[in-house]
Amino acid sequence: MSAKRKPPSPENRLALRRLAETFSLPRMEAGWVWLAGAGPGEPGLASLLTLCAIAEADVVMSDALVSEQLLLLARPDAKIVAAGKRAGQAYPRQTVISSQLIGFARKGLKVLRLKGGDPLVFGRGGEEALALVRAAIPFRIVPGVSAGTGALAYAGIPVTHRETNQAVTFLTGHGADGKVPDHDWRALSEASPTLVFYMARKTAGDIASKLIGAGRSPDEPAAVISCGTLSDQQTRLTSLAELGPAAAESENPAIIVIGENVRLSLGLDWLGAALHGFRLDPDPLKNDPLRSAG
Amino acid sequence: MSAKRKPPSPENRLALRRLAETFSLPRMEAGWVWLAGAGPGEPGLASLLTLCAIAEADVVMSDALVSEQLLLLARPDAKIVAAGKRAGQAYPRQTVISSQLIGFARKGLKVLRLKGGDPLVFGRGGEEALALVRAAIPFRIVPGVSAGTGALAYAGIPVTHRETNQAVTFLTGHGADGKVPDHDWRALSEASPTLVFYMARKTAGDIASKLIGAGRSPDEPAAVISCGTLSDQQTRLTSLAELGPAAAESENPAIIVIGENVRLSLGLDWLGAALHGFRLDPDPLKNDPLRSAG
Repeated sequence: MSAKRKPPSPENRLALRRLAETFSLPRMEAGWVWLAGAGPGEPGLASLLTLCAIAEADVVMSDALVSEQLLLLARPDAKIVAAGKRAGQAYPRQTVISSQLIGFARKGLKVLRLKGGDPLVFGRGGEEALALVRAAIPFRIVPGVSAGTGALAYAGIPVTHRETNQAVTFLTGHGADGKVPDHDWRALSEASPTLVFYMARKTAGDIASKLIGAGRSPDEPAAVISCGTLSDQQTRLTSLAELGPAAAESENPAIIVIGENVRLSLGLDWLGAALHGFRLDPDPLKNDPLRSAG
Repeated sequence: MSAKRKPPSPENRLALRRLAETFSLPRMEAGWVWLAGAGPGEPGLASLLTLCAIAEADVVMSDALVSEQLLLLARPDAKIVAAGKRAGQAYPRQTVISSQLIGFARKGLKVLRLKGGDPLVFGRGGEEALALVRAAIPFRIVPGVSAGTGALAYAGIPVTHRETNQAVTFLTGHGADGKVPDHDWRALSEASPTLVFYMARKTAGDIASKLIGAGRSPDEPAAVISCGTLSDQQTRLTSLAELGPAAAESENPAIIVIGENVRLSLGLDWLGAALHGFRLDPDPLKNDPLRSAG
């Protein structure tokens, strides 16, 4: 938690209530569960509806990737439950999380299940919601900015750009067994100019091999974005051939993007330019910035 | 604009300022342009950073799809410029929009370019940002919830779900010439169990033919979601074979989703259940709800 940030206060909750009334936002109700996305990391990217839910909930079951700053908006008497998982750490099983949500809701509490990014984009929110349906618990889903779009925006990489891609595929790099999932690599490599991988830091080398084996160029640009949108965000620009080593040097959590649109970051890395004062390339697709930056 | 909503006020801007200070959010600066996403429609899904920018900007250049409620947060002396486009309506050319942004920034104004959804997901934000780089105008990008995830969440369709898809492809259904873009339909149909189309209402029939021709089943579930996340949202569940007529009956703006995950909406359509009191199916993938609902 950054020392320079002021602790939230009852005034913040009043401010949120005022905004919620202005926009006639729904309020949490007793016995309901809200499955809400907290966005990719930076607290300012959380939605108003999610912020209001944090301030209103009796119980917040939160993923490890959710900013602690956001949780400070919770009522002092609210119960905060850690329910997240990080690669390599012990975590409650999915069924345990669902049982806890159901238990809290049956007590008549206002229950917020807070997930990093978006709850339905590789967030297993659908499974938790179906468990609620089976238990006849009413619920609401609050989408959030997913890391796959948020981290790319903060790295200056457009998810789509007319000159590079009219399609983008989001995939998980980590199956239930911890290995690369059984994607159709040949079809993928032909179908989608841009591929965005979640949870793929450890499997990045395998993914690169499969894509090169399926016909993608080893020279194709790629990027590993760690801690996307946070103050310690790091972006490594690389090539498909060097993706494995680049990912191994990177921190978790990481998003990996492969495609010509990665080149645009040399023109559009507004965050790097603002923080480090370097000049942006006004024509990043015509020049060959990646090689010199590699 | 809904009559029951209270008009925003200076107190709202103070509330936003307070929250911005709590989270040490960046402030707009003179001569800067922020390219920000307003989210999929519902004002509560806009991010705190976007709301603060609306309240702070000297000029807001806004897309047609951005909620008027959000624009009411702007300062009374702020200039609001309509820069959006809707299918079939006249609109300023992209180069005109970029020139205006540059002109306002060169006057030393705090300029907000506000786009529906996310500025870099089929939003042409990359093109506008490159124009700013060429003019040496500093800028920031604020991602938003894209309609492709937000509208699906409000229709109870998980973008990804372990049992149905470990990959999802987002595509445009509308090329620069107004026709279906030149996607590799065979590879797409094999690569990605779930396809989410933007701007595809008019080309939906063509898209369905191409996918069926490439091997996707005509019985595959599909949905057309109009006015996603707004109070007049409408979801039509259909099959790939019937997608064209279903889209023709739907309103703009619309998101189209094709894949087995569409079946989950019969279990997870929390909004429909809350509004219309119908029972959700706790096992939507095992049953065959789509046929009976068709």
